[in-house]
Amino acid sequence: MNTFGKLFRVSIYGESHGAAVGVVIDGCPPGIPVSSEDLEEDLSRRRGGGKGATPRKEADIPVFKSGVFNEKTTGSPIHILFENKNINSSSYDEMKDTPRPGHADLVAVQKYGGFNDYRGGGHFSGRLTVGLVAAGYFAKKIISPMLVKAEITELGGLKDFDSVIEKALETGDSIGGVVQCSVENVPAGLGEPFFESVESLVSSAVFSIPAIKGIEFGAGFTGARMTGSQFNDEIIDVSGKTSTNNSGGINSGITNGNEIIFRVAVRPTASIPIKQKTVNLKTGESVEISISGRHDACITLRMPVVIETVTAIVLADLKLRKNAYTSF
Amino acid sequence: MNTFGKLFRVSIYGESHGAAVGVVIDGCPPGIPVSSEDLEEDLSRRRGGGKGATPRKEADIPVFKSGVFNEKTTGSPIHILFENKNINSSSYDEMKDTPRPGHADLVAVQKYGGFNDYRGGGHFSGRLTVGLVAAGYFAKKIISPMLVKAEITELGGLKDFDSVIEKALETGDSIGGVVQCSVENVPAGLGEPFFESVESLVSSAVFSIPAIKGIEFGAGFTGARMTGSQFNDEIIDVSGKTSTNNSGGINSGITNGNEIIFRVAVRPTASIPIKQKTVNLKTGESVEISISGRHDACITLRMPVVIETVTAIVLADLKLRKNAYTSF
Amino acid sequence: MNTFGKLFRVSIYGESHGAAVGVVIDGCPPGIPVSSEDLEEDLSRRRGGGKGATPRKEADIPVFKSGVFNEKTTGSPIHILFENKNINSSSYDEMKDTPRPGHADLVAVQKYGGFNDYRGGGHFSGRLTVGLVAAGYFAKKIISPMLVKAEITELGGLKDFDSVIEKALETGDSIGGVVQCSVENVPAGLGEPFFESVESLVSSAVFSIPAIKGIEFGAGFTGARMTGSQFNDEIIDVSGKTSTNNSGGINSGITNGNEIIFRVAVRPTASIPIKQKTVNLKTGESVEISISGRHDACITLRMPVVIETVTAIVLADLKLRKNAYTSF
Amino acid sequence: MNTFGKLFRVSIYGESHGAAVGVVIDGCPPGIPVSSEDLEEDLSRRRGGGKGATPRKEADIPVFKSGVFNEKTTGSPIHILFENKNINSSSYDEMKDTPRPGHADLVAVQKYGGFNDYRGGGHFSGRLTVGLVAAGYFAKKIISPMLVKAEITELGGLKDFDSVIEKALETGDSIGGVVQCSVENVPAGLGEPFFESVESLVSSAVFSIPAIKGIEFGAGFTGARMTGSQFNDEIIDVSGKTSTNNSGGINSGITNGNEIIFRVAVRPTASIPIKQKTVNLKTGESVEISISGRHDACITLRMPVVIETVTAIVLADLKLRKNAYTSF
Repeated sequence: MNTFGKLFRVSIYGESHGAAVGVVIDGCPPGIPVSSEDLEEDLSRRRGGGKGATPRKEADIPVFKSGVFNEKTTGSPIHILFENKNINSSSYDEMKDTPRPGHADLVAVQKYGGFNDYRGGGHFSGRLTVGLVAAGYFAKKIISPMLVKAEITELGGLKDFDSVIEKALETGDSIGGVVQCSVENVPAGLGEPFFESVESLVSSAVFSIPAIKGIEFGAGFTGARMTGSQFNDEIIDVSGKTSTNNSGGINSGITNGNEIIFRVAVRPTASIPIKQKTVNLKTGESVEISISGRHDACITLRMPVVIETVTAIVLADLKLRKNAYTSF
Repeated sequence: MNTFGKLFRVSIYGESHGAAVGVVIDGCPPGIPVSSEDLEEDLSRRRGGGKGATPRKEADIPVFKSGVFNEKTTGSPIHILFENKNINSSSYDEMKDTPRPGHADLVAVQKYGGFNDYRGGGHFSGRLTVGLVAAGYFAKKIISPMLVKAEITELGGLKDFDSVIEKALETGDSIGGVVQCSVENVPAGLGEPFFESVESLVSSAVFSIPAIKGIEFGAGFTGARMTGSQFNDEIIDVSGKTSTNNSGGINSGITNGNEIIFRVAVRPTASIPIKQKTVNLKTGESVEISISGRHDACITLRMPVVIETVTAIVLADLKLRKNAYTSF
Repeated sequence: MNTFGKLFRVSIYGESHGAAVGVVIDGCPPGIPVSSEDLEEDLSRRRGGGKGATPRKEADIPVFKSGVFNEKTTGSPIHILFENKNINSSSYDEMKDTPRPGHADLVAVQKYGGFNDYRGGGHFSGRLTVGLVAAGYFAKKIISPMLVKAEITELGGLKDFDSVIEKALETGDSIGGVVQCSVENVPAGLGEPFFESVESLVSSAVFSIPAIKGIEFGAGFTGARMTGSQFNDEIIDVSGKTSTNNSGGINSGITNGNEIIFRVAVRPTASIPIKQKTVNLKTGESVEISISGRHDACITLRMPVVIETVTAIVLADLKLRKNAYTSF
Repeated sequence: MNTFGKLFRVSIYGESHGAAVGVVIDGCPPGIPVSSEDLEEDLSRRRGGGKGATPRKEADIPVFKSGVFNEKTTGSPIHILFENKNINSSSYDEMKDTPRPGHADLVAVQKYGGFNDYRGGGHFSGRLTVGLVAAGYFAKKIISPMLVKAEITELGGLKDFDSVIEKALETGDSIGGVVQCSVENVPAGLGEPFFESVESLVSSAVFSIPAIKGIEFGAGFTGARMTGSQFNDEIIDVSGKTSTNNSGGINSGITNGNEIIFRVAVRPTASIPIKQKTVNLKTGESVEISISGRHDACITLRMPVVIETVTAIVLADLKLRKNAYTSF
């Protein structure tokens, strides 16, 4: 289902080439100031642009349909709609029967019996993340003074990655990357043991972003190769501050007051001009396709703000839930 | 909260040194045969034993308190209780004010204001996973013919890992590892776009297991270093079978009919005899502690069955949800 | 929170005098035909008109923003938006500090700290039910051949109620009524024991409609005055058909295959021209107000279709949930 | 599903003649003092006894299996188990094929394919409410200074009801009744508009109690016969105090600071010695049965404490949810 969260709840809807995409945010505290301009900073980070970015340009103008009055949140559900304007669906009809490798084309047919809107990835499109970024504006306000920051640490396998996009473009190929996210000023005690551990909720939210294929907290997979005496973070004061942070700020699913830190693996963009094999669903024949549409050569470039956003959404929900018990 | 799932729902409760741990399973179809003996195979895999295992031996005898009648499930909530019998809490009172590095000791105090049961890790103990394994019995029946299988692929950083536990024991240290899990006979179309993607739900369930710090699907972090033409799995027939499986059997959050495959990083056991620094919560002084209790040197050894279990629980829920739409 | 249901999920948003109201429907099966015209029949029933109806006329034109492609549902979230066009908020600013008796005015201030949109009842307005009615279109398709039908059985205390509205209008007063709802062709076995009994879910949905203050199933309050031998419905065949239907088609929370039947009490419209006492929130002084805006003298007249709608929504969810277990 | 609530969550399990019934309470604040004796007051009210009560006597001794340490709640899930001791299932095997009118016997077969535990009503038994009452202990502590009080206002159709039970016993029949529940010291602002209105949540919880067939808030069905000027509660001070309370302390789904008041209709006990018609499920023949087991002639007598309990559970959840937003 397309809703996330228990108290601060976010629902997204829309299709890439439909009338609109958007988000409904429920459980947002009243009185938070907001205007279209306020959202623009993060929306423009998501929009990307520059070398290797899709030529499709959407203005991403947030239209507030409910929940905001006199430029402040009211406490009622906030609905923000983004019209799809720059749509060119001509290429999709011919591709309809030849599902693109790495895309949702075939699973969508299998899941929805062929009734899905197949144009531009339909509901599965990364365009849906615009709603997440809009919701993130409120989440970031709620979690203040917590501060979420994500950045690319690796692109196409390189830590110094200036030339890698150009090379991908030249060869008609695409690249992936790694994004690291950290959260400062985290209070101890967020999260629940087991099913709603911070790792459970953050990973659940992060894997809702198209193209993410891995996540590791603190030392992560490297930590699996350490000994306990290397891995354990020694405690250096009664607030719980530790000398190292191999646990990524989370013990047994609960924040320990240190910085939260995690990294995610982003797969290379699935849409590439290089020819790939697939089948024609009607004839069953093997065919080769080349995807010439309007696509990013490196979707990773747009990821940091989306990862920040979903992390903030998780933390907003957890902060509200912690508040619920404060007076006891 | 300690409940997972939408239709097939699992709730766990208990403390390591309390009266019992257990599980309540709601939404299980009626008519599934079950006896104590049926559960024993997976329970004994979880119990472990052998070199480096804790000397605490619990018989783990499942007591069916509800939901089973004439050795078949009834359709009503199934409650299975495991009494804690082999308890020795003597060492915990003296450790109460010196939180163990890598454990929940300090976050539990911060979260619950010191009212938590601190003995043996209390509610945060890995002992709680016994309830998950019991629930997994039913989940594995529901998802048949899907077949979940997890195995250790790396221990203490080594792929050939016979000697590594002995060495850890000699040095009073502990080790971590990597577990790989695969699912065969997966139908296409399980999972939802975005917030309930298969990766979201599996990762959420897997991170509810204590000591897990990373997860990657298909090519995972290695895939982030590939190009699109290397990563994309070419489609070779109309059922969706692919020539490679870098996406781990999941496209855009939905199963594509190929094998599901993922790996998890297990941190080294936190409890080690080697001295570590912590603070005394009452005096604020830095102190050194050595943890001499009854612990595994390598918790990874018990993990495969628990990872299978939570994966089966996720898939049982998704299979039921898919069924709901079959007749339309 | 503004979401209802487990598999078939309905979320509503909007304010009476804001930009729009609308609904997001998640978990709707793909392939259901739908157009604006299809929705018009029930929308026009809700819109009312005629004697005693509000002079505010909204065209209620449903704009499909997502989830519908080629005039069929796609399986993705369906978003239907209704723009607010006929807005006249002039009277609300002056009423802002004198909360209307029987309205949400004061509780909204208390709950949202004064940030709520107070114009025309804001988010609390009955106008929000337009989204429910739109969602009901799909629910009614899903539950077919179940057939939900609601009708007014009592108005202003009278069973023969032709003249009662005119009298209310003359005196500047308003009236309430009783609506009876029945469902035919109900399969046995819908609903869950205890927390998700059919009565629990239907009542929960019905009480989400503004102005409802009571509900009774089958013999209801009259049944509380019967003896067991009068009340019990004797079973006359193996399908579960009964000779009477005092239980309203529901035993122990589960449908028994007989007609579902229940009645709801609708309070008289709160907005009346007759003078009433309230307080000025700024001065604390007692004042008298007369509500001259555009209001129905009898909101009950619009209720049958809304009650049908929420009942269909509950049954759609329960039918899908029952389907989930059919193959076991 | 057998779980209720969002933050304060209650799950019940068990069968009337199985090993045990019980409750798991999740999200209870830590530090609440509790012992077996503390629970006894409300448990004994539920147990009933006296004229017309079932001769089955259960001691109802609560066994704390988790979540309580040093006689205080820990913040972890609380599991309380009640063993079934006084079981006599001999009569149920012979009744197995002749479903009792007014009972779940037939719907249980239809829903669970005959795998259900049919003895003594199985999972559908009123015995399950013992777990609700245990959960209510904690809920009542959480909502303090709110005070919930329920009492019988009508029995067998009479307001003065001393002789009515005796008469029912003499004739081998049973009677129903009406219970009124009120809550004092209610803060304004609990509840949500629409789907989680106070009426929605309270009615949903109340209808999870077996034998309830109606509920009305404030003036309820009588209010449907009033005019607006009679019904509206005039506001007499800035805190929202009203001169009358026809809305039952709830406007538009939100508490208004006045007393919450509602009444519920309890159907007469279904089990009666008087002969009734049913069918033999194997032969299809019409048969007459007389139910001679151990039953209450008037289940209403045990209801007040159960109604208080579920009301307190709803309010505990809503109070926690309100707390979540307090600091904003």
